[in-house]
Formats: sequence, structure tokens, C-alpha cells
Amino acid sequence: MTETPKRVVSNLEYLKKLFIMPDSPDKFVEFGHELLEIIHDFFQEKGGIHSSISLPELSKIFDQITIPDSPLLIKDVLSEIKSKVIKHSVKVYNPYYIGHMTSAIPYFMILLEMIIAALNQNQVKIETAKASSFVEKELITWLHHLIFRRKDIFYENHTQDPRVALGSVTSGGTLANLTALLVAREKAFPPRGGFQGVRTNGMAEALNHYGYKRGVIIVSSRGHYSIRKAVNLLGIGDANVISIPVDDHNHIDINKVRRKVKILQEDEEIKTKIITIVGIAGTTETGNVDNLEALGEIARNANTHFHVDACWGGPALLADDYRHLFKGIELANSVSIDTHKLFFCPMSMGLILFRNEKDLNLIKHASQYIIRKNSVDIGRFTIEGSRPFASLKPWASLKIIGRQGYGLLFREARESTDYMRSILDHCGNFETLNIPELFILNYRFIPETVRDQLAIWKKDISSSEDKDIKKIAAKKTKKSNNLINGLNIKLHRALRMDDTTFVSRTTLESTRYRPQNIVVLRAVLINPLTNREILNEIVETQNRIGLSIWKKFKSAFIKICNNTT
Amino acid sequence: MTETPKRVVSNLEYLKKLFIMPDSPDKFVEFGHELLEIIHDFFQEKGGIHSSISLPELSKIFDQITIPDSPLLIKDVLSEIKSKVIKHSVKVYNPYYIGHMTSAIPYFMILLEMIIAALNQNQVKIETAKASSFVEKELITWLHHLIFRRKDIFYENHTQDPRVALGSVTSGGTLANLTALLVAREKAFPPRGGFQGVRTNGMAEALNHYGYKRGVIIVSSRGHYSIRKAVNLLGIGDANVISIPVDDHNHIDINKVRRKVKILQEDEEIKTKIITIVGIAGTTETGNVDNLEALGEIARNANTHFHVDACWGGPALLADDYRHLFKGIELANSVSIDTHKLFFCPMSMGLILFRNEKDLNLIKHASQYIIRKNSVDIGRFTIEGSRPFASLKPWASLKIIGRQGYGLLFREARESTDYMRSILDHCGNFETLNIPELFILNYRFIPETVRDQLAIWKKDISSSEDKDIKKIAAKKTKKSNNLINGLNIKLHRALRMDDTTFVSRTTLESTRYRPQNIVVLRAVLINPLTNREILNEIVETQNRIGLSIWKKFKSAFIKICNNTT
Repeated sequence: MTETPKRVVSNLEYLKKLFIMPDSPDKFVEFGHELLEIIHDFFQEKGGIHSSISLPELSKIFDQITIPDSPLLIKDVLSEIKSKVIKHSVKVYNPYYIGHMTSAIPYFMILLEMIIAALNQNQVKIETAKASSFVEKELITWLHHLIFRRKDIFYENHTQDPRVALGSVTSGGTLANLTALLVAREKAFPPRGGFQGVRTNGMAEALNHYGYKRGVIIVSSRGHYSIRKAVNLLGIGDANVISIPVDDHNHIDINKVRRKVKILQEDEEIKTKIITIVGIAGTTETGNVDNLEALGEIARNANTHFHVDACWGGPALLADDYRHLFKGIELANSVSIDTHKLFFCPMSMGLILFRNEKDLNLIKHASQYIIRKNSVDIGRFTIEGSRPFASLKPWASLKIIGRQGYGLLFREARESTDYMRSILDHCGNFETLNIPELFILNYRFIPETVRDQLAIWKKDISSSEDKDIKKIAAKKTKKSNNLINGLNIKLHRALRMDDTTFVSRTTLESTRYRPQNIVVLRAVLINPLTNREILNEIVETQNRIGLSIWKKFKSAFIKICNNTT
Repeated sequence: MTETPKRVVSNLEYLKKLFIMPDSPDKFVEFGHELLEIIHDFFQEKGGIHSSISLPELSKIFDQITIPDSPLLIKDVLSEIKSKVIKHSVKVYNPYYIGHMTSAIPYFMILLEMIIAALNQNQVKIETAKASSFVEKELITWLHHLIFRRKDIFYENHTQDPRVALGSVTSGGTLANLTALLVAREKAFPPRGGFQGVRTNGMAEALNHYGYKRGVIIVSSRGHYSIRKAVNLLGIGDANVISIPVDDHNHIDINKVRRKVKILQEDEEIKTKIITIVGIAGTTETGNVDNLEALGEIARNANTHFHVDACWGGPALLADDYRHLFKGIELANSVSIDTHKLFFCPMSMGLILFRNEKDLNLIKHASQYIIRKNSVDIGRFTIEGSRPFASLKPWASLKIIGRQGYGLLFREARESTDYMRSILDHCGNFETLNIPELFILNYRFIPETVRDQLAIWKKDISSSEDKDIKKIAAKKTKKSNNLINGLNIKLHRALRMDDTTFVSRTTLESTRYRPQNIVVLRAVLINPLTNREILNEIVETQNRIGLSIWKKFKSAFIKICNNTT
């Protein structure tokens, strides 16, 4: 048994001391040291990725209803955090954890977070954030230049000009996309005559004033759910998100976009305003990048805002080998990008960047006590109010790792992706289901027998002259895929129970079996510590567990094969 | 001159090592130690609060257009951060800095940020945040219970039930208020027949379906600008924010609310839906708390959502001495609260709490790859997507400081406020302009002569029987106030130049000179290290600088006095 934590009697002198950086930093260092050991242990621990404790058991650990009355010693709370929280945290840094975009971070990030907390600057206002306001604006310029490559004179004039903002820092990609769509909404229905803009008069009057029945957003079926959230927040209604199908490579179907835009423009009955066309630069599920050049051209011709969601993929622009994938991104009116994904910063920070330095002025606001007119405060241009000095993390990281360093990390990520793809393709019991442009791989477990049989049926469907044979083959393919979907859901659950490795799972309509929905496993290969041996182990584990589950599915498959109707 | 930072050639082995917690934590501790010294120096530094560097000079330090190409050593970047960033940061922890809600934090917060960064959990999903999801839900219950005091069985059933959320954690108060208004908007126009709710069908169809011309939000003129931002974001249009004047104590005028609600309800021509009534529990400018009980009753009778913005003042509920101020808060449908203000946590985190456990289900969302239906992920209930494990800070802090400790800190804050008020009142050259309920003081510098003269004119206005004398006294009062407004703006600028002390400045219409706008200085007295000697010094400094500026205003005042028209 551990000691019972000591309750302390509150007294003001003790409390005041908590607020003072001790005269000699010994006390602080002492706790710091202890904490480093705890953190170190966590990183060295060999156990499962998610800790084996069940959710109901965890519920029981965190079931207090009321706030503790009397105080506890810092050391007791740290040890409680160690045994209750750290122990049961997800080891997202683990190189066997390749399921999500949340991954390992360089250890210097922990030091940067210490600085951010110690300074406790509030970015909303220059009176609470001096140098940090300038760091933020410099970082914004770096990324603006990376994306839009405008002339040096543009940046010399605008980087530190308090009257404009080339972008803003947000709590994450959702707020970045929301800011973009907010600006797009304002541009779609600008003030005119008695109408003072959507922000002032609302969506109903905006549509009414301009004689529109609806305002729509166009994005591919791979669009991140934050786009839909932004549209519903903004009062546009997410029924007005027009989801365009993707091609076989998970890119938005450009011809379908063109056709849709034309139909919308020609519809005299339901007059429709296209508020924005959204391109995706690194889809969350498959890691693919839309044809941004073509989308940019369509948007320009339709005289509408063009937003690119580069939250995940954007940082790949740092590596020249990937620049071609993003061709046309400089046509965007706005681009969102996250720092807690491919910039390898800790949770969480997003950025929204606008090509035109005046765009963010459309949503500028002021208030007497916090942001006066003619102020130089960054807070005028953000949806959020109080904000931390999170920008220090990517700013410092871009110096410590450098463009070259990020380039190497992305090359490594790509090599991992290609390597995993090749072992999956050679194993026999897997089927890869996307062609990765960045570092995400979709695949499924499918025993060789089933895979071979599907190939035969595919041939029947495409080349048989007998209509019935075609029909039966199609039916059996569908049934088998449903069976394999169930198998992969079971496999994913079993992998979670095994807990030595981790990939995520999703469902795609855009595989070679389209339009049938296929359950796929999804690997995000960005941890530089995930080496070939580890990838071999991960695939072996999936193969082993997959085959053992397959035993229970086999007879159902034989039944499908033998069925002659 | 400092050494030129060494450019490093990128290599993957070096980069990989950055991602590994070193086998012995020595390296990490070495940097950690160095950093602690830097932080320590910053806290000991005696210089000005804002650093004397001018904004144009700072612009020149942060004027790089492009991202650094080759990497720098961590130690070089840390020393750059020291000389460029830390040196020119605002010393918000300084006990002479009493101008904003951003203030000192206990040093253990820096340790907690280290843990949060090291774990790098992403709260959006259980697969990326295991124990931390439960910590967050426990914290939400604590605050829910503090505010709403529902029965134990309510919390036993709902605290860790994944099907509901009693609240959610946000990046700050703005997002907390936005979440509340989003739910209120959905409740105001619920799905019915062909109408699927505002989120799906948008604001225009919502009004149209229910036969309303407009939807409005009612809040006092002291309402935080985030309410207005939320309303404009939501497509309601901030022209539909109905701003109700406050009484002499900066409380919303209850009779005016009642009258307004009645008028809105009886208007047959412009049919209006009241989306929500907002009460403020701790106004940003003056620290006052609306009559929540009366507002709650009005909202219930009007069958509308009642939201309380307790972002600043909410934590005062921890101290029983303040409970009475918040009487009626338990009637609210939603309450927002910040942890980076009176919980003394670093930037930034907000919370939104809903009395009814089903309210957040109205805005629930799902997506295939990240949040599947029937998932237990917290991300279903939040506007934001990826989110840090920020809730660890208040959770641990409530254990370390405890209710009792917070109670003592608030008592101390209140004593500072009262003490400052008394020295201002006794100095002769100041006028206090609000009656603090919490820890914010509004006042202005006004030389004794002017103050005395204003008192004489006040008498004339109230008791003279000569209409002309009344009129002239009123005119002279107004002119003098304008003069003193200018004086206080100049004083505030001079204090910024002096930079040994800091208060903020705002403009109020609700002082004893209403409806004239009065420029006031604003002190937020929450730093427990701000003692009586320091307050004396702050007031002395303001008095000294104020008197020297007054010399330039004196003749203008004499002119006002002597003018007989």
C-alpha cells in the first residue's frame, strides 16, 4: 500500500510561496528532477500501448463528485498523477503506435512548454504579450511564404504591420477552417446599401438581400468533418455542404466539380451562392492531395473563395520532393495547417493563412477594455480571445530541425510507408487499398484464398459474356466483402486487446470495390522511430491474429462460394 | 558579441535522437536545468514590466521572411529565445502588474505542462487519450457540482457515462460561450417535420420554418465581446444582440429586461425568438455579478435558454463567502468558466457546463475515421477537434490548493481590492468609480480642485432652483469630465512609458456621471504577491505622474470654470 496523502491546512504564507519562483531554483529543480524520472519511466515502459485497465475500472478511479476541500502536498499529487494518470495514458510516442496523427514529439518540446508556461503571455493583446506577438507574426510570414511565395516586398511591408494580419494562430485545425469559412461567408455577402454584412445582419438577411435561396460549400467526400462543423456553426446549415465524389486515388473528381458549379450557376429556380470551394491537401483518411490547380481555376472562374485544408499535409511543403503534389496551392485564398501533426509539436495549434493581407480585416473586431480601435493587438483578428504563446513551439522547432531536417523526416516517413506497403503486398493475406502520396496507408486483412477468388470473380465481371455469370460474380464479391469487413472489424478489436501494436480503422467507398463500403485498416507512418523491424512485427501480428479469426469466418465464405443463385 | 550560432548538417540519426527520451535522462536534465536558470533569471529581473524596447525595434528582430534552412543546435536556439523572446516578454507575474486577468501562476503549473507535453494525449478520442478522458470528465463533474449542486445520484449516473457529457473543455472562454450559444440556437429551433434543425438547415430556414423574423440574444452592456463574436459566427447577426443598460452597480437592469422581453413577445409585426438570455457573473470591466436569480426566472417564464458567463468570476464559488453573489446560478442552462483566470492556471482553457445532461447531445457529431457512432470519444461533444490534456492543470491545482486554499486566495484578493480603494479614496486626487463585488477596481486620477468643483456643480444641478445655474453646472461638469478623460488617457500612456507599474484602462458609461462616457483606470487585484506596500507605491506613482501631467491641463480647467455662458 502507498502512504495516505497528507492533508495540509491552508495558510496564506504557504500559498504565496507557490507563486514565487524560489530564490534558489533548488526546490523547483528537485520537483523537476523527480518529474523527469517519472516521464522517463513512462517512456521506457514496455507494457501495452493503451494500458490494460478497462474503461469501467478507470471510471471507478475518477469518480469523485466534489472538489477536494483541504490541500494536498505537491509531491503527493505528483505521485497520484504518476499512478493514476501517467500509468493509464496512451503511449502515442511508441513506434508500434501507427494509427493516428498524434505521435512522438522531440523531447525539446517539453522544454519549450516550460518556457511558454513560465512566461504565461496572453497573445490577445500587446499589453500581455510583447515579443511573443512578434514571434507569432514572424512564424505566420514563414508559412505564408512557404505556401504563397509572394514577393519579398510583400512580406517586408506586412509581416509586422499591425494594421493587417496575414493569418492567425488557432487552437487547432477546426478553428483554422472555421476562420477561413467565416471570411469566405463575409466575402460572399459583402455589406451593400442597408445590408451591413453577414456578421452584423445574419445569414437569413444575407440570402434575402442578395436574392439567394441558399449558400453552399463544395468539398470532396474525403473532406474532414471540421468543414461540416464549421458550416453548421456558421448558420449556413450542413445540408448545404455539397460533397463531390473522389476518383480512384481519393482526389476530388474535377469534372464533377465543374459540372456541379455549372448546374448551380444555371439554376434559375433555386438561386445559389457558392460560398467557397474547399481543396484538401492531405486527406485525413488516405493522405491524398486534391488537384489544387484545377480547383483554383474553377474557383476563380466562379468568382468564389478557394480554401485549402492542408492541416495534415501542409508541412510536406517544407521538402522540395513534395512541392509538386501541392501545385496550385498558391491560388488559394486561405490555407489551414496544423502544428501538432507533421510539425511534430505537442497538442495543439493550428494556423490559418490568407493570401490577401486584407482578408482578415473583414472579421476584425474591437472592444473598449481589451482591444481598442487603432490598437496593435493581434486579438482583433482571431475568433478566440485569450490564447497561449503556442507559436513558440513551431518557431523554435523550425530552427532546431530546419527545412532540411523536416525534409529528411518526411523522406523517412515515406520510406516507412512504402516499406509497409511492400510487406503487406508480399504477405499474401493483405490487400493494400490506396496509393499513398504522403504517409498514410489503407489496407485490409484478406486471406489469400479469398483474395484469389475475388480476382477470379473480377475477371468474370469484366470479361464474361454470360450475364448471369457476371451477376453472380458481382453478388458473391459483394457478399465476400461484407464478410471481410466483419473480419477486419473483429481483427481491429482483437489488436486493441492484444495492445502491442496499433493501427486505426475506417470505412472507404473509394476503393477498387466502389461503390461498396470497405472496412480498412489505416496506418499513419510518421514516427521516425518506427523502423523496418517494427513494421515487420506489426504486420506479422496482424497476420497471425487475422488468420486465427479467419477460422471462424471460413465456413461462411465457403457457403458464399458454393451458392449457385 | 555572442557567438554565431552553429549551423548543423541535417542527419537522420541526430534527428531520431531528438525523438527519444534519452536512456539516461541526463541530457534532458542538463537542458532542463539550464532552462530553469533562464526562467529563474527572468522572474528575478528588476527591469520594467514590458521591457523598454520599442515596437519598431522589435519588428526588426523578428523580420525573417523564410524558414531557416539548416538546423541549429538546441542550446543556440534556447539562448536565442533567452535574448530575443524572454527578455522582451511582459512580466505578467510581477506584483506591480495589476492591469489584466493574466497574472502570476504557481510554479507547479510549469511541471504540469511538462507532463501534458510528454504524454501528448489528444482528448478528441479514447484511442489517443485514455486516463486523461476520465480526468477531464471528473473535473467537469466537480465544477458542475460546484455550480448546479445536483443530487449525488445525478453525478454517479452521468460523470463517466460515455453517452452524455455534462460539459466540455475548450481552448478558452470564447469557445465556451460559443458552445453555449450553439446549443441555445439548436434548442430555439428544434427539428420538426421537414426541418432538421439549425445545424443542418441553417439560420434562414430556421426562422422561416418557425415563422420568425429574427432571433435575438439579450445581454447587458457589460457583456464580454465574445458573446457578440459568437452571435456573429452563428449566423444570427450581432445586430440581434439586444444590449440592456446596467444600473449604477453595473448589474443588468432587471426591469428593463422584463420590459424588453414583454415588448418582443407582444410584437406581432416583427415576430422574434429569444434564443438566450445571458447573465454575467463577473463583468470583465468592473467585476460585478448580475442578478442571476431574477434573470433565471425571466428566462424560464419566456421559455428560453439561460446562459451565465462566469468565465472570470465563476471560481469565486469555491469560497463560501462569495456564494451569495451567484444566487440563482443553479437556474442556468449553461455556465462558462475559465481556468486561466481565477483558477491561476497558465494560458489557456475554458469550460462550458450544462445543467441538463442531454443538452450537449444536441450538437453531437460523428465521422467514420475519427469518431464512429456508438463511440465513447469525448470529441463527439466539442466544437474543437484535436485538444490537449489541459484539464490536468485545474484538476491537479484543485487538489494542491484545495477549496480552502482558493478561498484564502480570494479573501486576499478582496483585501487588496478594498485596501487599494481606501488609499485611492484618501489620497484626494483620485475618484473610485465602482463598488467592487469581486476583485476589480475602476477609478480615475482627478486633482482635488477638480473633484471639489465637480461636487459643487453636482449640488447646483440637484438643488438649485435656477434653471440656468443647473444648465451651466451640467455643461461645465461635462466639459471637465472630457478634460479629465484626456488627462487619464495621457496618464495611462505615461505609466506605460514609466513601466514600473501597470493598470489597464477602459471607458464606462455607467458611472455616477452617466450617460457621459468616463475614462477609467482598471486594476485587477488577483496576484497574491501584490501587498500593501506595493499598492502604496503604485498609487503614489500614479499620483506623482498624474500631478505632473495635470500642469498642462490646469489652464483649460480654469477656462471652463470662468466661462459664464
